[in-house]
Amino acid sequence: MLGSTHGTLTTNSRHARVAACGRPPGPAVHVHGRTAADEDVDVSGRPLHSAVPDLDRFFRPESVAVVGASDTEGRPNTGITRQLIAWAERVGARLHPVHPSRPAVFGLPCVPSVADLPEPVDLAVLLVRDPLPLMEELASAKVKFAVAFASGFAETGAEGAAAQARLSAAARRGGLRLLGPNTNLNAFEEFREDLEGPAIALITQSGHQGRPVFTLQELGIRLSHWAPTGNEADLETADFISYFASRPEVGAIAMYVEGLKDGRSFLLAADHAARAGVPVVAVKVGRTETGARTAASHTGKLTGSDAVVDAAMRQFGVIRVDGLDELQDTAALLARARPPLAEGVVVYSISGGTGAHFADLATAAGLPLPTLDAEKQAELHQWIPGELSVANPVDNGGHPVGDWRGRKIIDAILADPSVGVLICPITGPFPPMSDKLAQDLVDAAEHTDKLVCVVWGSPVGTEPAYRTTLLGSSRVATFRTFANCITAVRAYLEHHRFTAGYRSPFDDAPRTPSPSARKAQALLRPGEQLSEHAAKQLLRAYGIRVPREQLVTSAAAAVRAAGLVGYPVAMKASAPQLAHKTELGLVRLGLTSASQVRDTYRDLTDIARYEGVELDGVLVCQMVERGVEMVVGVTHDSLFGPTVTVGIGGVLVEVLRDTAVRVPPFGEDQARAMLTELRGRALLDGVRGLPPCDVDALVEVVLRVQRMALELGDDLAELDVNPLMVLPRGQGAVALDALAVCR
Amino acid sequence: MLGSTHGTLTTNSRHARVAACGRPPGPAVHVHGRTAADEDVDVSGRPLHSAVPDLDRFFRPESVAVVGASDTEGRPNTGITRQLIAWAERVGARLHPVHPSRPAVFGLPCVPSVADLPEPVDLAVLLVRDPLPLMEELASAKVKFAVAFASGFAETGAEGAAAQARLSAAARRGGLRLLGPNTNLNAFEEFREDLEGPAIALITQSGHQGRPVFTLQELGIRLSHWAPTGNEADLETADFISYFASRPEVGAIAMYVEGLKDGRSFLLAADHAARAGVPVVAVKVGRTETGARTAASHTGKLTGSDAVVDAAMRQFGVIRVDGLDELQDTAALLARARPPLAEGVVVYSISGGTGAHFADLATAAGLPLPTLDAEKQAELHQWIPGELSVANPVDNGGHPVGDWRGRKIIDAILADPSVGVLICPITGPFPPMSDKLAQDLVDAAEHTDKLVCVVWGSPVGTEPAYRTTLLGSSRVATFRTFANCITAVRAYLEHHRFTAGYRSPFDDAPRTPSPSARKAQALLRPGEQLSEHAAKQLLRAYGIRVPREQLVTSAAAAVRAAGLVGYPVAMKASAPQLAHKTELGLVRLGLTSASQVRDTYRDLTDIARYEGVELDGVLVCQMVERGVEMVVGVTHDSLFGPTVTVGIGGVLVEVLRDTAVRVPPFGEDQARAMLTELRGRALLDGVRGLPPCDVDALVEVVLRVQRMALELGDDLAELDVNPLMVLPRGQGAVALDALAVCR
Repeated sequence: MLGSTHGTLTTNSRHARVAACGRPPGPAVHVHGRTAADEDVDVSGRPLHSAVPDLDRFFRPESVAVVGASDTEGRPNTGITRQLIAWAERVGARLHPVHPSRPAVFGLPCVPSVADLPEPVDLAVLLVRDPLPLMEELASAKVKFAVAFASGFAETGAEGAAAQARLSAAARRGGLRLLGPNTNLNAFEEFREDLEGPAIALITQSGHQGRPVFTLQELGIRLSHWAPTGNEADLETADFISYFASRPEVGAIAMYVEGLKDGRSFLLAADHAARAGVPVVAVKVGRTETGARTAASHTGKLTGSDAVVDAAMRQFGVIRVDGLDELQDTAALLARARPPLAEGVVVYSISGGTGAHFADLATAAGLPLPTLDAEKQAELHQWIPGELSVANPVDNGGHPVGDWRGRKIIDAILADPSVGVLICPITGPFPPMSDKLAQDLVDAAEHTDKLVCVVWGSPVGTEPAYRTTLLGSSRVATFRTFANCITAVRAYLEHHRFTAGYRSPFDDAPRTPSPSARKAQALLRPGEQLSEHAAKQLLRAYGIRVPREQLVTSAAAAVRAAGLVGYPVAMKASAPQLAHKTELGLVRLGLTSASQVRDTYRDLTDIARYEGVELDGVLVCQMVERGVEMVVGVTHDSLFGPTVTVGIGGVLVEVLRDTAVRVPPFGEDQARAMLTELRGRALLDGVRGLPPCDVDALVEVVLRVQRMALELGDDLAELDVNPLMVLPRGQGAVALDALAVCR
Repeated sequence: MLGSTHGTLTTNSRHARVAACGRPPGPAVHVHGRTAADEDVDVSGRPLHSAVPDLDRFFRPESVAVVGASDTEGRPNTGITRQLIAWAERVGARLHPVHPSRPAVFGLPCVPSVADLPEPVDLAVLLVRDPLPLMEELASAKVKFAVAFASGFAETGAEGAAAQARLSAAARRGGLRLLGPNTNLNAFEEFREDLEGPAIALITQSGHQGRPVFTLQELGIRLSHWAPTGNEADLETADFISYFASRPEVGAIAMYVEGLKDGRSFLLAADHAARAGVPVVAVKVGRTETGARTAASHTGKLTGSDAVVDAAMRQFGVIRVDGLDELQDTAALLARARPPLAEGVVVYSISGGTGAHFADLATAAGLPLPTLDAEKQAELHQWIPGELSVANPVDNGGHPVGDWRGRKIIDAILADPSVGVLICPITGPFPPMSDKLAQDLVDAAEHTDKLVCVVWGSPVGTEPAYRTTLLGSSRVATFRTFANCITAVRAYLEHHRFTAGYRSPFDDAPRTPSPSARKAQALLRPGEQLSEHAAKQLLRAYGIRVPREQLVTSAAAAVRAAGLVGYPVAMKASAPQLAHKTELGLVRLGLTSASQVRDTYRDLTDIARYEGVELDGVLVCQMVERGVEMVVGVTHDSLFGPTVTVGIGGVLVEVLRDTAVRVPPFGEDQARAMLTELRGRALLDGVRGLPPCDVDALVEVVLRVQRMALELGDDLAELDVNPLMVLPRGQGAVALDALAVCR
């Protein structure tokens, strides 16, 4: 895979990018420690910057206390103590065993309590059943970090959660940072020092689940840190993301996450990593209810709505994968590969079948496979028989790899300016060919700044060409399956595209309420669902267009209103707490005369009386028919707070559930990206002879609804604009109905 | 993985199933050779049974001729000759080199030509540049099979395709079966004789792509045959499927397919395998245009419409996978595992995180994870600490695997009657635990008829627990990734569910035309698009309901018709070759009075005159509004002929493209399955206060359209019923508009 000498280039350019990223005038980004910048909050009172903790002395302490140390064979703490002593030696830390009755542990002098420690220690590892009583003592001893292994906290239910809250409060009071409880030794494993180049930093909520990524060291891939976050009473996943993203040796962050402690801190950490250009690759459990439930019983955290988690990750460039194998392969590639010099991917194979199959899967996954130009094809045909296709995929038919032509072909492909990535899938090991091919690829990779990938498809995996030649190279990225290679290369291209164009939405997040907010606040009625009329006033406060309409309380007024609004009109009963208007017959469309309006007024008020609905009046509304019905809304997520949704509206809304969601804050780019996610997106482009819709107006409504969600915060429990009629281009969008629920 | 002694059970029950499968009285299924049964055809003249060739003497010949044999070092034919001699020795065949000028080859007496062979040979391997001139000689010598290695045929374009057609004609004339051209030595590789149990038979259109499946032998999985079909001038993929499905040693067929020679023969072969209960697992290139194009240039075959290929495979139980790794893992499991004793899958892990993650992915993929009952949970809690969840996934927390409890837990899970499959994902190798766990799983698997799967998640793969313990067992199915285990287990459960309920649609395919066919034939106009009125008559001929309507040619007649049809009415211009009626303003809905009808008649005829459309009249139609708009149609596929489509109709039809397709013949079960594939399926269940639709009537229309497609065959190029208004349950379905194009 990609080597160390060049790896520093990536690292340097990343840090350069942080500096150049250009936040507007205001508090500077403080990379370490909590500073005044952390007090910088948005209009909803939530922070705008990640609080990046300084964890240097956690991972590389100068002195460590092991509370509950033991050297009695057969005790669980003995093995742990032994491992900690070995680790302390490796990182050069002084280790002090603490035990009430032992004079020494493994020959190291033991003190009876934390208070008796001979020096202030950076890190205390707590091997005791209940860490809570120790917290005050640790604080007095000026311990910076503590790790609590004990389990039986939030993962066990309400009582455990309460105990965990006490632990977390005690840590906060004492001014120390706590890892755990319900964590393990993973932070203190043996990291190979002989491997060079950018490393993977690992964050997991399960030791067993992190093991395969950690084990990548045996395949020559460097690991720098492992944070087993456990129950996250204090230090959480987000803290490690932002810390690792600030470390120069970290090329990528790999995570196994079951739940998040706090949505906002996660977003800020992901934003911090995106600004720094450090890729974050994550497995997140919770695609299904079964997964969410099981995960909750493991570390007692909320999994959140999966669709929202998924959107939040995409917004901030976190690469989500499903399997641990994908996590390994994607993180390893992203950590080590330099930024692409071009986007084009060329597939090169000794078999036309393999080329066709790989190209099929790669194209289906969206990888760009440019056709090589005629000149390049002619060049390749110097060495490859003329009947074989070299347009891309390049099929060499096998024989040329056996001699000097093999290397020539690879170099010629890599020299093409449209090519950023060369992928060579070798499905069948056939040593006379595949060994030479593997060696040529490794040699060629040493002489290029472009990415060279190999898929070694043999199920055996003990072949020397794989074990020695390919894994022995830090310049070639080696995979075992087509799918993982495609997933990783796509993530690689997307990551660099994303960070190159990244502008943090937190920089543009509103800090002070708009005039709309004051108007809107006056319309809210705590705990109630607003009437349609009031909900539409809320929209108007935020500059979202509603139809010409009047709220009337008599038949005569209705007729007058219809005259002003203009025939044909729609009439609807308007009342707080009113649901299922259409089903109750409280909506009438296309009324064309005064007499129809008069009759309808009576009908609606009769039905309302019969159904016991207390109306605030009847709405007489302009009919707006020529457009595409969309839906725009706000919902509250347990992890992330208010979220904004847009989707295809109208009669099919419940059937298709064709919606896209985003977590504020997000910019116009994301509002537009939401629309491209819709399966029915073509509807907006004009179908069946209809003109294209005013997409700009739709985007504007989404952004105004976001502003409303941010400014009204928790006071607005739910908003549903359905339908929002999006008119032909240049004509805007009109909210024909709205439902708003206050908290 | 699953062992040999039990494997025969599968084999026996499979053959029992073939006998019991109960075709209706008629020609018997002849498993070998072409018989009178092959002449049994459906109403479209196409065969109803697979022509199963007897390939015993191809794979196990008694005598072989090698035409073009060589022992001159450095010549390509020399290596091939050497490999063929070794293979002939292994299978016990007499080998005769044929060369015009050599007296002997590798010490074997050589004859100058095929005519001089000392005995009639079963198989001739042709190592000559142009095999065509040899065909007559081979036929005279009563050679049964020939293999042509030469390339330069259909894969190179039109000229090559013509040469291939001549070769194929010569083989047919000569009464011999030909493999190739453009094929290779794969059929004559070394198959390990020491492995027992049901085997994988392999069919590939690329040697390099088949290699990883073949290499499974090195992991202890038995391979019985490899058919490299090349260009399929004569013998095709379908021939090998049906032959392998008839062989007792074959447990599963694995295929790598780029294109198919003929859709019908593929369906019949898949049907043959489904009747025999032999699973077929396939990688099929052609998901994308890039893949299809590249594949075509490799072996010169049609890839067909991918959606149609996909549907055809599902209809006949062919398991399609994307990657060669999935092909290996799925075929290996299906070949060796006995039928499930229950459908329930239990996930068992030493880590709550691993259990949660696996359960999440498995549930998302549709695997059934039943909750273990209270009694079983109490039993497991004898050995597993009470705070750990054992409901399923079963989390043992790690420690119990280290002692006698480990095996007890596994046995207790397997003893549960709801459990058919136990899956144990071991992501992190931690020898004190994982080695013992692996051994316990292997031991437990020896004592159960249930399926035991292990995922060995370490990226290294050289650990003894994996290499020796797990791969050394023929009773445990071992995987390297969660995803492949889930894919394979899902395929395993689906395959057995499918074959248990399989009834061949070819048994019920119509053999003689219905009275509808004669009526319909009379309506067709070769090369034309019928008028709406004529297309609806076509539907009526097949008993598909259309609205009350009359075709009129005067305003007065229109008014009379409206009175008979009943107001409100729709009026539409009707003419052959008329497209875009709505866009031209030639459709008017909701006319409520005689004067509106009279005016509309004039409008429509005026527009038609202006547009130069020669009307056959104006349709005055009943309005049918209360229902769900669907679309049902017939299209022709280049590989499979007529196909039937059903989907969500109405305005969103082009935007959503929410359709399902089937290749005839198919039964009511498949017609219903089409509906469940629709994303908007809920629309049929009643939404927004609408009653549920008459799904039975919709299914009936799909089946009648299928009958029409079968009976009209190539004469009907295209049919599009859109919208088909599906009324509330019990009220039927009405075709409101139809487009029919004749060939």
